[in-house]
Amino acid sequence: MKKIETCEKNGFNEERMSNFLVHDSPYMKVLSFNFRGGQDLPIHSHDIDGQLCLVVIEGKGQFLGKDGSTSSAKPGDVLISDISEPHGLRASTDMRVLVTIAPPI
Amino acid sequence: MKKIETCEKNGFNEERMSNFLVHDSPYMKVLSFNFRGGQDLPIHSHDIDGQLCLVVIEGKGQFLGKDGSTSSAKPGDVLISDISEPHGLRASTDMRVLVTIAPPI
Repeated sequence: MKKIETCEKNGFNEERMSNFLVHDSPYMKVLSFNFRGGQDLPIHSHDIDGQLCLVVIEGKGQFLGKDGSTSSAKPGDVLISDISEPHGLRASTDMRVLVTIAPPI
Repeated sequence: MKKIETCEKNGFNEERMSNFLVHDSPYMKVLSFNFRGGQDLPIHSHDIDGQLCLVVIEGKGQFLGKDGSTSSAKPGDVLISDISEPHGLRASTDMRVLVTIAPPI
């Protein structure tokens, strides 16, 4: 059992989205993504099996999907996506998002 | 790909911790746990393989571990635990926690 204080451990990067590894095991990988307002994680996908769960901890922005689709993102909002589906994020304000990937990649 | 607005979809239960299923797949199970201040998820464990990731979305309380150990819990704090390890939660204020279990149970 371990506790990670993701909002204290990691700062922002003024140049681009910043991320750090929270946990990695044979069961799941957990990452913290941190955005300054205006930064983004461009749409991407990987041709592998598995899913990811994004949950917004702080801030607001948009989830990005295929063909330019967008959906608002605020604290408590969860996006579930296959790893092989196009997905991304754009921050309107400073934003922290926890990402869980299973099985880990 | 699907979005779930966990803070809007689910209310609290005045009698006990409330929870609802956010997502279930062969890869992971995601639940939203909602507590009024003073409510708890008593310490428990299951003798099966896998891990869980708890992340606090709103509110404050304590993560509970074996032998009466406690650790403060605030937004952005993550607890990683084997499913077979004793774990629990106690809310000091109204509190929302997202739980991811992999592999799903």
